[in-house]
Formats: sequence, structure tokens, C-alpha cells
Amino acid sequence: MTSTKATSFQEYQAQREAFIKDDRSLRREFLPANLNLRTSKEAEADRIVREIRALEEKTIWREDYTDIPHPFPGMEFLTGKRIIEKTRLFKILSKMPKGGLLHAHLDATVDTEYLYRLAFKYPIMHIRVIAPLSASTLVTNPPEFRALPKAERTNGTSLAHAAYEAGSWVPLTNARESFPKEMGGPEGFDKWVIGSLTINPSEAYGTHNTVEKIWQKFRSTFFTATGLIRFTPIFAEYIKEFLRSSIADGILYVEPRVNFWYKNLYGENGEENVQHRDLLQIFDRIVKEVKEEMAQAGRAGEFIGAKIIYSTVRLITPEELEWYFADCITLKKEFPHLIAGFDLVGPENDLKPLIYYAKELLAFQERVKAEGLDIPFIFHAGETFGDGTEADTNLYDAILLGTKRIGHGFSLFKHPKLMKICREKGILLEVCPISNEVLRLTSSMPMHPLPALINNGVPVALCSDDPSVFGSMGLTYDYFQVLAASEVTGLSTLGALARDSIEFSSLEREEKARALEVFEKKWDEFVNYVVEYENQ
Amino acid sequence: MTSTKATSFQEYQAQREAFIKDDRSLRREFLPANLNLRTSKEAEADRIVREIRALEEKTIWREDYTDIPHPFPGMEFLTGKRIIEKTRLFKILSKMPKGGLLHAHLDATVDTEYLYRLAFKYPIMHIRVIAPLSASTLVTNPPEFRALPKAERTNGTSLAHAAYEAGSWVPLTNARESFPKEMGGPEGFDKWVIGSLTINPSEAYGTHNTVEKIWQKFRSTFFTATGLIRFTPIFAEYIKEFLRSSIADGILYVEPRVNFWYKNLYGENGEENVQHRDLLQIFDRIVKEVKEEMAQAGRAGEFIGAKIIYSTVRLITPEELEWYFADCITLKKEFPHLIAGFDLVGPENDLKPLIYYAKELLAFQERVKAEGLDIPFIFHAGETFGDGTEADTNLYDAILLGTKRIGHGFSLFKHPKLMKICREKGILLEVCPISNEVLRLTSSMPMHPLPALINNGVPVALCSDDPSVFGSMGLTYDYFQVLAASEVTGLSTLGALARDSIEFSSLEREEKARALEVFEKKWDEFVNYVVEYENQ
Repeated sequence: MTSTKATSFQEYQAQREAFIKDDRSLRREFLPANLNLRTSKEAEADRIVREIRALEEKTIWREDYTDIPHPFPGMEFLTGKRIIEKTRLFKILSKMPKGGLLHAHLDATVDTEYLYRLAFKYPIMHIRVIAPLSASTLVTNPPEFRALPKAERTNGTSLAHAAYEAGSWVPLTNARESFPKEMGGPEGFDKWVIGSLTINPSEAYGTHNTVEKIWQKFRSTFFTATGLIRFTPIFAEYIKEFLRSSIADGILYVEPRVNFWYKNLYGENGEENVQHRDLLQIFDRIVKEVKEEMAQAGRAGEFIGAKIIYSTVRLITPEELEWYFADCITLKKEFPHLIAGFDLVGPENDLKPLIYYAKELLAFQERVKAEGLDIPFIFHAGETFGDGTEADTNLYDAILLGTKRIGHGFSLFKHPKLMKICREKGILLEVCPISNEVLRLTSSMPMHPLPALINNGVPVALCSDDPSVFGSMGLTYDYFQVLAASEVTGLSTLGALARDSIEFSSLEREEKARALEVFEKKWDEFVNYVVEYENQ
Repeated sequence: MTSTKATSFQEYQAQREAFIKDDRSLRREFLPANLNLRTSKEAEADRIVREIRALEEKTIWREDYTDIPHPFPGMEFLTGKRIIEKTRLFKILSKMPKGGLLHAHLDATVDTEYLYRLAFKYPIMHIRVIAPLSASTLVTNPPEFRALPKAERTNGTSLAHAAYEAGSWVPLTNARESFPKEMGGPEGFDKWVIGSLTINPSEAYGTHNTVEKIWQKFRSTFFTATGLIRFTPIFAEYIKEFLRSSIADGILYVEPRVNFWYKNLYGENGEENVQHRDLLQIFDRIVKEVKEEMAQAGRAGEFIGAKIIYSTVRLITPEELEWYFADCITLKKEFPHLIAGFDLVGPENDLKPLIYYAKELLAFQERVKAEGLDIPFIFHAGETFGDGTEADTNLYDAILLGTKRIGHGFSLFKHPKLMKICREKGILLEVCPISNEVLRLTSSMPMHPLPALINNGVPVALCSDDPSVFGSMGLTYDYFQVLAASEVTGLSTLGALARDSIEFSSLEREEKARALEVFEKKWDEFVNYVVEYENQ
């Protein structure tokens, strides 16, 4: 393929074509299984989508936007979202079946407005801040929420009054209604809370424009969200909305990571007495309810189910980790169909690397095996642009410890041998394009290393990570960013990515087969739609 | 290497170490040739440098800088330069022998202040703008320079006067002295000219923060520089300064790309009558003068020489290209020791791709071979973050056409087969870290794909591309950015990169052997210096 002895231009062109094909031969859309599924209609839909992409690159993306100085396809998501939503490409992708969602943190999966509105249904929901609010400290003073037990409830009225005692709880409705005019009144309060649950463009691309700084804001959104979500009545509604909105975006199956802490769920009376098994029971019940709902609507096939990846934060001691292992095993025994695996989460650059826990992780593996359980590791690793840093080095440990998939693996493209192992052993990468960009590992999608992974034949699923924080609900936005930023990637690539998100999920064999069957049916409908209605 | 069956933690650790070593085994600092050269003193120097890097990451890079909101090692060069220059790491690298400079555009290789001062030695130097200057249009109205023949000289006085006739020439000194007070007077004039020859932080990271926009400014710097440089008296001094300043930075050999246009050099009388062979004669003479200068100073070994890569711009027609081929062949015959190869330059995203010229390039190859000449292609290719775009696809053509090295190859990391070919066939990548960042292919060094290339065993030489435009004179800044942004890369990595810049240069066999010999001597002195003077 690399000879330079072409004696004629025709010969050169043939050589060139074969050369390009060979370079792309590891891409998973060219796997026999995927090629066999490809119809002439899909090829036509692929062509149509490429044409629309090329056209919109020259039109919508070249318009003058007064507040967007440098629009381009694949640009900074928080700034470009408005343009993305104007495109035909986005409309098309919103109708695409997405397969499974394999990487999302439960506490960041529901639209923040929806969550916020839920809170007002419960008068026992209180709010507090660490210092009296003032207009100038609003953005650095995020609220904390909690449903309080009767004995602790207050009739505080305002967070902004000079008399407000720092850290004391105020009923949510009071706090909102008393919000001072100079801070925007009740609407200003809403804006402040929503702003505390999300990252905005001027934070990501201005005030917090480094990985370290944006993570401060990012973690702060969880600080605010947790008290709202981890309250059983809201929790149930929250999960239902997560499932419903995922289904609406064409997602068949979800596998969220759920953070477990000793106690981290408040009951309907505001008592912190809800056990981890109660949490799983709620989850289980809601999944069943949504399945019934779908069946009643004649759409049973569109939702295959949900499982949980048991997660805890990588700042605990190895001794504390043992407690979580025991907890996870207990839960797995009671809910074998719900617990999909085990992970350690949190910023890899600041917290403990996997090697810190390696001894305990090895022992856990042995124990799980001895007990005849199936709790694979599904580790976060390599969520960094560092080279040889602890976060980057986590990739070696994740693989050596037999991780089933890799969460992020952003730095994997630097490691030729590791990519080969992922390809050959079938370790899928849960790639989160928008998350990586908003959290400043890459400045825009054209700079994202995803094409290197795809060209190396590494299995990849596109994931949303924390869509409520980024305002990227569902998977359509992430698919859009990937499609917009590459001229190699087409509809068939996206189809292969979606199939892999089912193939590498934690679904049981029969569930998986059913999911794939449903997917193919939906895919054909989608391809038909593109050819019939978007071909103009 | 990928077994997960470690039965003890000790075993796990041994496995892990071997695993990491294997993943890095293609790195060229581990080639037997490089390992054989490694002394225990180098290992000690490597350790010292790693310690200093780690320390400075936590000190100098964490200080509060009023006008640098987010300092970090490997940050945006134009903003971080001031911090870089404060580091011990920079001081150390400025003493490191650098080998050869294999990718730099001659017209952007000399400090702009130096070039600008040269112009005042020649009263026949004139200046013009396309519209009368005003304070508000200063930055969008870059000057053009030209040495004018007697008949065309003027006694215009000002570029800013309302009576200034757009596009008319004014003697440089007059224009400077008459520069209006409200635009800063003569010092304001100096600032304006220097600003037109360089890219500043607010352009790169603000007003022109996309590849497309920064290239507009970038090309405009050449528009201003050309008229100053391409005037024989200045040209000679310019080349001398280029060589001297390179030597001062520890560069042994330079191989600049020189743009050829039908006529593009003005003689000392301001006539555009200087031939391409005259240009080469000047170049040849200056190289000899600098060699003599060095010999007289007892430093003969520190400068091995210079060659030229004949370049023209990829916007001409294939028919016009034939003229340049003929010109290049004629020059090669007269100056066989000077012409190192042939290239097509200019923004790959906007201008013609290699395939557009493939027929003619193939024919040129045949002709060169038939005439028994040695004019390899040394193509720019893949200077893009695009995936499957024309610029990215140039990589296939460059390799198929037998390129000796690749200029930039920024997108090569996405192509597993192409990296393998580069590794196996010895096609070196001329990587220009600061150029890539300032020209917005990457936002900072940690986002640069260089580690992927190095881990894949692709030969790489670090290059400065257009140091006068970026303010990154010499190679120290580029080496700094690479060392600062990786924890795998150490002194031994930099040594291997520098050796490759000699190994893959266009030096003749004996010159190369001599250059390597000089390099090793200088390298040992450098390692000694680090161990003796920086170990505290």
C-alpha cells in the first residue's frame, strides 16, 4: 500500500483509494456484522446527511450571531447550542434510535427546571447558604437543600436578610418569596438556583476556563442538587423523569452510575433513615412502572430497562472501601438484576488513583468470584489530558484489574498498546464528548481525540455524563457534536456506535438480543424517514 | 501483559510495571542507539529536571498574575511566555543543544525588532497602506514595504494625513516622524509596524480565536514582512541574523523553507531584477561568512551549515507548477549542496490539496530521477484538526508520493496505519508545538497530540515554524512547551528528539556524522551542567 511506484495517474488513484480504505479498515462500521446490516437505503440516508452537513457548514454556521463571535460546527457546546438547535442535522439526529446510555451520573440526568419545580411540591423542603446572600456574592454562594424532619423545621423567611444566621435552614417557598428585588425578586431566586445547578458559557469559557477551575463549579452543582434529589418522594419522580426523557430521545436502556454514601437519602418525613436497599427498591419500582406505562401505550419495545453501576467516591480510605464492597455485595444478592458493576468516581486528577486501592480491588474480585456473583469493575479512567499523570496511569490499572468498560478514557488515544487491548479484548470506551469539552479537556469537538479511537477500532459508546449540568439532555447533542466535527463519520458510523452501546451494555443475553432487535427495527424506520422526508 | 490473574499485590505491581514499559516501548528514547548513549549522569540530570518541573508546577505556575487568569504549564504561549521565562526549566533548556531546525519559513525567522531596525538603514525603503490611517483602523490596516527604484521614489510625508493618496508610497522615515500624536507618535508607529509583523494574545485568544480567523492575521504578517526582507541588502543581513541567533540557541544546522515566486527579491537600487540564483548566491555567501566567523571565534563545530527547501504556494495551477519544477531543477544543478527538497506551502484548509497536483508531482519525480538529481518532496500535510478533510487527506498523498518528512502532520495521530508507515519507513514529523497552538489547532500543549506520536514511535523533530510571528525565537520555547506538558517526557526524550532532528535532516552522510559527533559532545557538557549547577 505504501509503494510510490505508481506509473500512471490512474494507478496512483487506485492505490490511493486502497490506501485510505486500509487506514480506516479497523473502524467498527466496517465490521462484517455492521456491513451485513447496511442497506442501500442506509447508504442513501448517509449521503443525504453528509450533504446537509456540508450545506449547513456553509450556511447556518456562517451566519452572523451578535453574541457568538466564532461559530463553527463542533464549537463550544454551551455557546453553540442555540445554533445546533436550528440545524436540520439536529432535527434528524433527534429522531435517531440511540441504543443504550452507558455513562451518566444519576444525580445529573434530569432537566434542572423540572427538578427545581418538583421541590415546591414539598413544603418540608428547606434551603440554606453559608453566608447571608448579597447581589455580589450570589454566584459564589450556592444553595444547599434538605427536606427537614418536623423537629428541625423553621419559619425562617429570608436568606438575604442581614439577620440571616449563616447556615440556618429556611423553608424554600419563604426564601423564594422574600428574595430581594435588587437581586431580581422570586425570578432572580429561580435564576440563582438554576445557575447553581448548571454550568454557563461564561463560567466554562471565561471565569473557570481550566480543568481545575471548572471542576470546582462542576462539583458545586452536585452540592446543590443532592439535597433536592436524595429525598424519597422527589427521588421516585426524578427517576421516572430520567427514564421518560431518555426514552423520548430514542434511548432504549440506561445504566446510570449511582453514588452510594453511608446514608444519602432522606425519607418523606425528612429523616435520614432510608437504606441503600430502599433506594434500589424505589429504582426497581419506577423501572417497572415505566415499563407498564410503555406497554399500555403500545410502545413496550421502546424501553428495555435500567441497571445501576454501584459507585463511591475515590477519596475514601482503602479500609472504608471494604464497607462499600460489603454493601455492594449485599445489594447484588438482593437485586441481582439491578447491580451492573462497581466503580470509583470523582475527579481523577485530585483524588486517589486506582493503584491506591489495588490491593483491596484485587481481593474484592476474588471474593465476588468465590461467592459466584457477577460484579465487574466498570472504571472511570484517563479522564484527563495529562500525559503520564495519575489520572492517565489509571488506564493501566483499569485494564489490569479487568475493567469491563472504561469511563471516558480520554487519554487512551496516546497509548497504542492499550488501544490494541481494548480492540482485541472488547473493552468499550464510554466517550462523553460534551462533558469533555465543557470540563475543558478539549476546547471543541474538532480537537477531541475520538477519531483516533474510532480509527483504531476501539469500541465506543457516546454518553452524556452529566446532561443536566451541561444542558445536553438525552444523547442527541452528543451525537450531533460527533457528526458535525468529522467528514469521515457518517450515519453508518453513528449506527455502529449505537449498536455497540447495546452490545457492550450489562444487559443479560436475551434482553440484549431483544434490544438489538428493537434497535434494528427502529434504525430501519429512521433510515426510511431520512430518505423519505429529508431528501430535498 | 494483560492478564488479570495477579494472585498477590507484589505480582500485580510487577505486572503493572512491565505493562507500562511495554506501552512505552516504541518511544524513540528507548531505541538501542539512544539507550547506548545514556549515561548515569544523564539519568541524574533527567531526575533533576523532573524535580524542578514538579516544583515549578506548584510554585511559579500557581502564583497570582494580575493579567494571566489561568496559568498552567503548557498554557497558551503568547500569554504564558512571561511566566515561562521566569522558570529554571527554561533557563536549563536554553542551554540544551538542539540539533537541527527542520521546519521554519525563512521570512518568519528573525526577531521583528531586529528586522524593523534594519529597514532604517536604507533611505530607499518606502511604506504604504491601502487607506489613510486613523486610530480606529490601525489594526486592520497593515503596512506594506518596498525599496523603490529612483524613478519611483516620493517625498510623501504621512500615511495618516487626510490628503494621503491610498496606496501611494511614503519614505519610511517620513512616515514614522509624521505619525500623529493621537496614534502615539513615532513610538506608536513602531508599535503598529511590530504589531503588524506579529500575533498578539488578544488576537490569538480573542478576536481571531479560530483557525480560519487567525490565519487571516497570520498571512497578513507575511504581507508586511516580505517587502522588508526581500531586498538584497536587508536579505543578506537577515539571513546572517537568522543563522547567528539560531546558533546562539544551540541549533547546529538549519533547513528553512524559502518561498519562490517569479520575482520576489528587490536589488539594492530597488529594481525587481534579482534572480532566484542571486538569492541562492547570497544565501550561500552568508552561510560561508558565518562559518568563517565561527571558526575565527574557535567555535567552528557549533555550526554545521544550512540548506533550503524550495517552496511555492499551493494556489498556483498545475501548469504554473511546471515552471517552478524547472526553476527548482535549474537551481539544484547550480547549487546541489543548497537545495534539500521541494514543498508546497500555504493554508492547507483553503488552498489546493496535493491530489490536485498529483499528476505533475509524479512526473516531476520521474524527471528528477532521470536527471540523476536528488530533490525529495518534503511536504506540508495534515496541518489541521479536521477529520477526513482535504488537509487531513493530504497525509495519504504525501506518503504515497514518497515524502521524505512531513511538515506538521498534526492530524497524523488519528491514522494508525500512517503512523506505522512513518515509524517503519522512517518518515519524520516536523512538529511545531507553539505554531499549532497559536494558530488554534490546539488550545494548549496538554491538548496537543504529540504524546500519541511519540508513543507510536513516529520520528519527530520539534520545530519553530514562524518564530518571529509568535515571538518564540530559537527552539527553546518549543522544547519548553513539550517538556512542561508531559510527565512521561524527560531530558532523555528531548535528547532523542534532538538527535532525530539531525538524523532526518538533509545533511550529507559525512556532515551528518560530524553533526552527531558535535551534538554528543555538547549533550554531555549540557548534562554535566545540569548535574553540577542545577542540582540544588
